[in-house]
Amino acid sequence: MAMTAISPLAPTAFPALPPVGGVRFATAEAGIKYADRTDVLVMAFEPGTTVAGVFTRSKCPAAPIDWCKAALPKGRARALLVNSGNANAFTGKRGREAVRISAAMAAKTVGCRPSDVFVASTGVIGEPIDPAKFKDVLADMAGRLAPEPWIQPANAIMTTDTFPKGVSRRVALGDRMVTINGIAKGAGMIAPDMATMLAFVVTDAPIAAPVLQSLLSRSVRDSFNAITVDSDTSTSDTLLLFATGAAKDVPRVDNLRDRRLGAFRQALDAVLLDLAHQIVKDGEGARKFIEVRVDGAVSKPSARRIAMSIANSPLVKTAIAGEDANWGRVVMAVGKAGEPADRDRLAIWFGDIRVAFRGERDPVYLEAAAGEYMKHDKIIVTVDIGLGKGSDRVWTCDLTKEYVAINGDYRT
Amino acid sequence: MAMTAISPLAPTAFPALPPVGGVRFATAEAGIKYADRTDVLVMAFEPGTTVAGVFTRSKCPAAPIDWCKAALPKGRARALLVNSGNANAFTGKRGREAVRISAAMAAKTVGCRPSDVFVASTGVIGEPIDPAKFKDVLADMAGRLAPEPWIQPANAIMTTDTFPKGVSRRVALGDRMVTINGIAKGAGMIAPDMATMLAFVVTDAPIAAPVLQSLLSRSVRDSFNAITVDSDTSTSDTLLLFATGAAKDVPRVDNLRDRRLGAFRQALDAVLLDLAHQIVKDGEGARKFIEVRVDGAVSKPSARRIAMSIANSPLVKTAIAGEDANWGRVVMAVGKAGEPADRDRLAIWFGDIRVAFRGERDPVYLEAAAGEYMKHDKIIVTVDIGLGKGSDRVWTCDLTKEYVAINGDYRT
Repeated sequence: MAMTAISPLAPTAFPALPPVGGVRFATAEAGIKYADRTDVLVMAFEPGTTVAGVFTRSKCPAAPIDWCKAALPKGRARALLVNSGNANAFTGKRGREAVRISAAMAAKTVGCRPSDVFVASTGVIGEPIDPAKFKDVLADMAGRLAPEPWIQPANAIMTTDTFPKGVSRRVALGDRMVTINGIAKGAGMIAPDMATMLAFVVTDAPIAAPVLQSLLSRSVRDSFNAITVDSDTSTSDTLLLFATGAAKDVPRVDNLRDRRLGAFRQALDAVLLDLAHQIVKDGEGARKFIEVRVDGAVSKPSARRIAMSIANSPLVKTAIAGEDANWGRVVMAVGKAGEPADRDRLAIWFGDIRVAFRGERDPVYLEAAAGEYMKHDKIIVTVDIGLGKGSDRVWTCDLTKEYVAINGDYRT
Repeated sequence: MAMTAISPLAPTAFPALPPVGGVRFATAEAGIKYADRTDVLVMAFEPGTTVAGVFTRSKCPAAPIDWCKAALPKGRARALLVNSGNANAFTGKRGREAVRISAAMAAKTVGCRPSDVFVASTGVIGEPIDPAKFKDVLADMAGRLAPEPWIQPANAIMTTDTFPKGVSRRVALGDRMVTINGIAKGAGMIAPDMATMLAFVVTDAPIAAPVLQSLLSRSVRDSFNAITVDSDTSTSDTLLLFATGAAKDVPRVDNLRDRRLGAFRQALDAVLLDLAHQIVKDGEGARKFIEVRVDGAVSKPSARRIAMSIANSPLVKTAIAGEDANWGRVVMAVGKAGEPADRDRLAIWFGDIRVAFRGERDPVYLEAAAGEYMKHDKIIVTVDIGLGKGSDRVWTCDLTKEYVAINGDYRT
């Protein structure tokens, strides 16, 4: 595989992520696919850690997804085992066996039951994974578990990502401060032969598992579920949120209506949205970060579907790659969404420039001004449907020749 | 716009299309967008000609679509006016007025009522179209109406197509032979700033309009509705079928259960499928013609949705562009279709090579053989879902850097 330059949309540096009470980790080079890079992550959580999760809706999920879904209802976690380089997807009975063996080994490393271990894999689909590779490194990792630096786990879970992704927030929970750290990997919904969006978020807040799951399920709608790189859905998408409860002197949150949750909820939303945006900014071949806003739809779900129709349109995405303020293609994408729309009420903006109004080209719009705007790294496309009060936002990246090169030239 | 080389999937020559009784046509250079090429087509039909039509499902259709939909219920046609270079889409009241004026001028050329004229436009969205451009050429065209050569109308309706598309069939209707001719243009569902798939089919068979509409609506399902280039839907897609009834000594078909229709129906299906395949073979940047077959789904509509999920997946299409037998991406596309599927019953073939079986890589499949197969111009991807008896087929092309170049570099 050719080395890819770092995305031009990448942040200048990996952010500062402080230690989170109750969390230690280690990474290692197991040589699963690549040489000379870390590809295994073990994270260990203190007893009492609760967990919430959201997984791919694929009807053909990878073996680790089945494992995590079976473990989740207990709501507790002691370890997370992640590998990159092999997705352990579409690997049949051997794949399921590999997850079982790996989880047992990770449990031994951390000192817990296998059913308290969560597992995620990202990489090639259809290749059997050899759990012996974990065995070689896990014993050594047990002695190296440490609360930092967080760039190490962020690096170990990367596949074709061009930069490690992390974010941290400090937020009040009642009269005490807690921390939320998150790491993620993306690249395509499925990168070259390798799967997946993975995101792991940890906090030292003491929050009961059912409350944690409600918070996560709600927050994901307007973050990870509001982004698209290429409309393809991985077999392995995994988002896990762990709460160790190690923050000092904070009474446990057992109820979703606990008034202390307001600020925490906002901080969690911000963490997930930041990670989701970083994934888009590292979309394969991405040169532009695109926000699609839809207002005036008949409902919020209708606005979401129209926004996704625009964000997934290859013709809209190639036009933006070409810095072309091609609003005709936006009209096309609104029209094909299948949602209520009235051609003669549509208005479209690129940034602050209204290019179409009441079903026609805006008479005052200047092509040159729109062309100048299209040179920006971030492009905001706004559509007013003119029918109701439904609004929503989604994010995507442009579709470039590099996307095709990364995904088409991979084996050749 | 850069000139594009003829698609490598193009037929070696435009086929021989004989005259069809009751049909004459002329083309002209009106300079709507391009210089030195024909961009207007007028087709004249004998009195008594019936018509059937199928149009885009876009909620933002172009002005000519509204006109045709209003004219269709009468079931009769005397003329067809088509222009390339401007889609007359999203042009508001002026656009509707332009259609009315153009239809009136075409009616004068042919000698009929404006409401017997069908209109189709393909090209830039959002640019007002000047009907005076038609006026300049239509008077001259009236004197040049002729029954051949059919390559002229096929050329006049092209936008970014790299070859003219035509097909002809002779078929028995009872004990007499009739002719079906068809022409089409495609390129992308929307080509660079220009819309649209257009197809016009004419026959000298005498068939009542309601029968003709039933035949067309049924035939379109497995032809034009079973193809996709980039999942984008034009504001202007138009398929019209005209039946002049000029074939000698053939009693009129007034009933869908007329036993003479069997062979005609098959021939019509073949004509539409051939045109649909030609459109895919001229998909923007296409280098491979792809057939996706799905068997064993729970129903035929379920098989269609799974097949379309595969055919529209950018990752499947880029893999085929890269001649990569990447069946993991096919699994991914099956999984994201949202239809019933069981990972552990899936089987996948590229051509005759079974690459996956019962939820795992086929143990006997040789990467080298699959790699050899992927070098072909035509790639058949077959998936057996293993759940039921639902089967269906769709066609698409690969996704290449040229697609991005054609659609992204257009204005720059």
